[in-house]
Amino acid sequence: MTFAATILTLYPEMFPGPLGQSLAGRAMERGDWSCETVQIRDFATDKHRTVDDTPAGGGAGMVLKPDVLASALDSVADSRPVLAMTPRGKPITQARIREIAAGPGVTFVCGRFEGVDERFFEARPQVEQVSLADIVLSGGEPAALAILDACIRLLPGVMGAASSGHEESFEDGLLEYPQYTRPQEWEGRTIPEVLRSGDHAKIAAWRKARSEYDTRSRRPDLWERRGGAPGQSASDAQHEN
Amino acid sequence: MTFAATILTLYPEMFPGPLGQSLAGRAMERGDWSCETVQIRDFATDKHRTVDDTPAGGGAGMVLKPDVLASALDSVADSRPVLAMTPRGKPITQARIREIAAGPGVTFVCGRFEGVDERFFEARPQVEQVSLADIVLSGGEPAALAILDACIRLLPGVMGAASSGHEESFEDGLLEYPQYTRPQEWEGRTIPEVLRSGDHAKIAAWRKARSEYDTRSRRPDLWERRGGAPGQSASDAQHEN
Repeated sequence: MTFAATILTLYPEMFPGPLGQSLAGRAMERGDWSCETVQIRDFATDKHRTVDDTPAGGGAGMVLKPDVLASALDSVADSRPVLAMTPRGKPITQARIREIAAGPGVTFVCGRFEGVDERFFEARPQVEQVSLADIVLSGGEPAALAILDACIRLLPGVMGAASSGHEESFEDGLLEYPQYTRPQEWEGRTIPEVLRSGDHAKIAAWRKARSEYDTRSRRPDLWERRGGAPGQSASDAQHEN
Repeated sequence: MTFAATILTLYPEMFPGPLGQSLAGRAMERGDWSCETVQIRDFATDKHRTVDDTPAGGGAGMVLKPDVLASALDSVADSRPVLAMTPRGKPITQARIREIAAGPGVTFVCGRFEGVDERFFEARPQVEQVSLADIVLSGGEPAALAILDACIRLLPGVMGAASSGHEESFEDGLLEYPQYTRPQEWEGRTIPEVLRSGDHAKIAAWRKARSEYDTRSRRPDLWERRGGAPGQSASDAQHEN
């Protein structure tokens, strides 16, 4: 089955962009996913093809018109989730990425300018307002690309090793453990002894301890959300290097 | 002054990608920013140009070799901040974006595969490990594009209206207020009366109240970080529509 992505945008030439390369690009060539864009401007109703107007109440920038955007969205109405990328939205999570990747596809609404007329969201309640990060982008397009990339890598058959994607950051509410590879020694630094022991149980325990230790020290917010107290001692993480 | 972005990547053809269009594209044409890529593979030392190897201790995927990546980074060593995009990193903030945008430029290190050998970060402590969002991407490239986009829009002269970028999400630890534009009535929904009042003080008060209300209800995490108690009443937000 092909995972179908549709992007409502004023800049259709931004897609597939970086997703035409590498892992996502090869997956697209195989037909694992497809990418269709809808030019919002095609739904403007005046002869100047106006898509935006000044903010009611004053202020800088321009606001996307609700009528034009709703017409664009109505043209692709189906059962797929609709994500509008906006800093006012709910932060995206890996759990939501997994849900979307397990479905038939996704539609993105990419705003530009100062934002989107709020009535668009009131009148089209199926639209999820989603935030990529606590930063402000020039538009929704780079956010849509990142979220789509996260979905594509989870599609069946896309990642070479099927087991990739299980032991990784956020899957268990934890950051992933640190990784090492050859050379054994580099700039006076060696790979932790335990990883060279061949003792799978010991390696698994070390990795779990490092995941917990790193999550607690680097991301106390994740650690607390997972139920660990801020000052609580995680399993005894050994830093062997 | 030109803001200089350098990206260490195995997929240089992904850049400038979407940033060659629209606001960022025009800024690049004007010389407000530049984009240079460094192919990590050019720093491999064997005849097969190997950049990755299997994870020490076992597991799926491949890990970027520390020696190759460090050589690539050393080739561009200068005073610019170096951001390595990894889900194990510190979440990016708008405050950090502003700092970077105010400087001479930025270097990105884009990992692929399962990750980067941890010794690279130990041996090159100037590298900031940065996370875009709590999702897992196929590589650092889409994250670097998003962060670069957020920087570029803040460069002097890039945004048409100079005042754009002040009243917006995260600048005051708050989400931005909702926006409205013409038509006055659409699908039975009107623009809130206050925004048509012409009373600038009243409009400012309404917007502040809506910012606070929306932050508290949509992003209790931001609200608490700002010092508001979770159940605390924000200014009296009037929903007039």
